[in-house]
Amino acid sequence: MRIPKAIQNVIESFERLPGIGPKSAERLTFYLLHVPQGELDRFALAVQNLRKDTIMCSSCFNIGETDPCFICRDPQRNQSMICVVEQPLDVIALEKSKKYPGVYHVLNGKIDPLNNIGPDEIRIGELLQRILNDELRITEVILATNPTMEGEATAMYIAKKLKVQSDKLKVSRIGRGLPIGADIEYADPTTLERAMEGRSEY
Amino acid sequence: MRIPKAIQNVIESFERLPGIGPKSAERLTFYLLHVPQGELDRFALAVQNLRKDTIMCSSCFNIGETDPCFICRDPQRNQSMICVVEQPLDVIALEKSKKYPGVYHVLNGKIDPLNNIGPDEIRIGELLQRILNDELRITEVILATNPTMEGEATAMYIAKKLKVQSDKLKVSRIGRGLPIGADIEYADPTTLERAMEGRSEY
Repeated sequence: MRIPKAIQNVIESFERLPGIGPKSAERLTFYLLHVPQGELDRFALAVQNLRKDTIMCSSCFNIGETDPCFICRDPQRNQSMICVVEQPLDVIALEKSKKYPGVYHVLNGKIDPLNNIGPDEIRIGELLQRILNDELRITEVILATNPTMEGEATAMYIAKKLKVQSDKLKVSRIGRGLPIGADIEYADPTTLERAMEGRSEY
Repeated sequence: MRIPKAIQNVIESFERLPGIGPKSAERLTFYLLHVPQGELDRFALAVQNLRKDTIMCSSCFNIGETDPCFICRDPQRNQSMICVVEQPLDVIALEKSKKYPGVYHVLNGKIDPLNNIGPDEIRIGELLQRILNDELRITEVILATNPTMEGEATAMYIAKKLKVQSDKLKVSRIGRGLPIGADIEYADPTTLERAMEGRSEY
């Protein structure tokens, strides 16, 4: 089957994206055929400028428009509190809750031996150095890696390293338990176990 | 939450696509942040040229690189047989089966009163005219709209119109029944009914 080259190119571009299979790629492409050229141009420009107009913050390793990023520069944020997350998307999610007053540190990954990612492949060294450089100011580190096997291992590894480095630093793990709106009836055993362990007094 | 403009633009572009929600749009965008600039440029160029480098065939209304399209121009195709489909993606699917020797007619829609799409909104008039113009050559029309309520209604409408226009034309509906690899056990009652009606003799 001869599919026009222009269409094939877009299908192939979509197919390379995670979670988009050949059928979805075809459907998205044929949808775009009905979209005005102006919107296609905007889409193209946005993709083209995505990396050019963003920069990684050399302090927290989040993606932003400036270096340091707007959170690291914000005098209103509590610079003594660092929340450690796996990826920039986690920062967006936490920021949406609007409850966290401190700054972040983005590991850009997690310790994952099955995929050959050790502690040196992610920004753990930079975190330790960052805390060492600013020892008097930084008082608390919240480990907010995902509650998965890899995320827990990463948190545990960092906690151990931090304890060796300083005994005054407060190190905590983000709370694990039942998500809001959940049914206890349908919760898995491990979540319930953590919810029991993490119970809080009235 | 201040998301960098360059990132927000790409997220919004993805969100406009069908079947991609806000979360998927974010995930796709942050995936693209790790893709080399060359690949981003290729993606952008492909999207930008999608419409410029394609054209609708004025005979069959499929999307192609030339007008008439390569199927309508192909001397090896049986030009006396027209397969009527809803959209260009259906042509691709049918071409993959490699068994259809004729040409196509793409309606670019289906009769769908709930969405205010009547017979005049899709390329039915053009189909009737095409057959009228070439009455001596065209002998068979296969109605291959989807076996959904709208697709069946569209096929029935076209069949009726064609019967009025010519009584020599052979008009058929694409076979409906069990898809290959299916379990009778799990098939729905309407499919089984159609499969019984559409049984073929050994």
